[in-house]
Amino acid sequence: MNKINRVAIVGGTHGNEFTGAFLVKKFQQFPEVIQKPSFETLTILGNPKAFEAGKRYIEKDLNRCFLTESLQNTNLSSYEDIRAKQIAGVLGAENKPNVDVVIDLHSTTANMGLSIILGNQDPFLLKLCAYLSDINPLVKVCYTIPEKGSNFLRSLNKLGFVIEVGAVAQGVLNAELFQKTEQLIYTILDYLEQYNRGNIPKINNLLALYKFTGTVDYPRNENGDIQGMIHPDIQFRDYEPLNPGDPLFLTLDGKAIAYEGTSTVYPIFINEAAYYEKGIAMLFTEKQLINPSS
Amino acid sequence: MNKINRVAIVGGTHGNEFTGAFLVKKFQQFPEVIQKPSFETLTILGNPKAFEAGKRYIEKDLNRCFLTESLQNTNLSSYEDIRAKQIAGVLGAENKPNVDVVIDLHSTTANMGLSIILGNQDPFLLKLCAYLSDINPLVKVCYTIPEKGSNFLRSLNKLGFVIEVGAVAQGVLNAELFQKTEQLIYTILDYLEQYNRGNIPKINNLLALYKFTGTVDYPRNENGDIQGMIHPDIQFRDYEPLNPGDPLFLTLDGKAIAYEGTSTVYPIFINEAAYYEKGIAMLFTEKQLINPSS
Repeated sequence: MNKINRVAIVGGTHGNEFTGAFLVKKFQQFPEVIQKPSFETLTILGNPKAFEAGKRYIEKDLNRCFLTESLQNTNLSSYEDIRAKQIAGVLGAENKPNVDVVIDLHSTTANMGLSIILGNQDPFLLKLCAYLSDINPLVKVCYTIPEKGSNFLRSLNKLGFVIEVGAVAQGVLNAELFQKTEQLIYTILDYLEQYNRGNIPKINNLLALYKFTGTVDYPRNENGDIQGMIHPDIQFRDYEPLNPGDPLFLTLDGKAIAYEGTSTVYPIFINEAAYYEKGIAMLFTEKQLINPSS
Repeated sequence: MNKINRVAIVGGTHGNEFTGAFLVKKFQQFPEVIQKPSFETLTILGNPKAFEAGKRYIEKDLNRCFLTESLQNTNLSSYEDIRAKQIAGVLGAENKPNVDVVIDLHSTTANMGLSIILGNQDPFLLKLCAYLSDINPLVKVCYTIPEKGSNFLRSLNKLGFVIEVGAVAQGVLNAELFQKTEQLIYTILDYLEQYNRGNIPKINNLLALYKFTGTVDYPRNENGDIQGMIHPDIQFRDYEPLNPGDPLFLTLDGKAIAYEGTSTVYPIFINEAAYYEKGIAMLFTEKQLINPSS
């Protein structure tokens, strides 16, 4: 791979995810903290109008507007469609990138710690993730939906990924999580600088990769109304093993509903506020140990 | 005081505060759990449209629409103004009530535990609160803004009060908090039943009452942009004493800002998401010990 010349940090792609939005605000106010000798770092506040309003989005979810066809469709004219085209104009497309790395900052009401979400298994990203999770146990690495034709902002770049931090409420700036995310970004920038110098650290440990296998909805009645909530035993326990028979939900009248699968899974995004409207109570993943150097 | 004949439980006055909204949903589905021999209990889902949309409100904050003048003003025609008139039609007004007690269920991103928020110091309410905080240390009691001319839903009734539970994110149903709030409501209904039988329990302990003294905004620059966050030392530490010189905020570039008052205060609603737009980082209170039987 070639030298890294430009890195983009995007925050506030969802306007009510304040950690990333305020980090970008800080980086724009104090640009020296993200400058490195061998590459340029640029910052983008993803959805300024939604951030101003304290909302996830104004008309539609910006982070679902980056399908190539959508970006080329001049009939799509919502605020977020227009904003997606502007952002893609700066960052370029996967086959014609203007930057070498894209870091998209998100936060979640689920207890995801410092999660890195990959849309592909590029060896460069796997090595970076192995390094980050090796030095900080709060860092977890997920591989979600294959990137081909993805509508996520991160899919604009082969080396695009999401940092998803939590648990934190929407519309709230939590200082501790702000600082942990900030440190993680500095570590990533340092790693990229070392890469440019041909000095990337060797990792001996295997990387735990949590691979998306499917989504689970809340229990609902015939009208679609939610009839149960995340069971207290698994609330805030993202990335922990869920075995067949373990409690999954608790109905409003106090009955436990068990996980009825046949194999152990590792739920993530448990009780994410923004996923209620999408019919998602949590995502299931399977855990794989991989050797990023092989 | 006369016998209690009707009690109203309102949930989802703010549509994205799911604890109260889903408790009302449960009570409407299983009405037997809130029925008592000596009085009737009715339930109201405060803002159904906002709950459906997962938002605090559609056009304006419903819980600021209950000023007597507003309820009588036929020119006010937003969804929430109309809804406030409907609710007031059911509950009556303070001087002409249709119910004897109003319990308005709210939730907060601040770590308020199980807070009871009073708008007046009616001896009946003080005795009830003394009992509740005596048997459950999670119960805290605040006295906020004098009720005279208040625009809150609870001000529709002399025995109106808010139960404010947290910390929980907006748009999230947390099972543990749901169950704790549910138990608190059952305890209140049991107390009212005992009152009607002339059996209210005697409380020997003093009641700790947290009295509102003022609000504090975030540090901002000349454009009004937030430049600092709640200091990690006080995040989630509602009701704990804050002494002169203690850290209050942390600026984006990492500098602590101290509390510069001259007396100890007890901050509440620390980092409530809905208060960012109101310019409120927290409320200050002073702690008083009172004898509810005197």
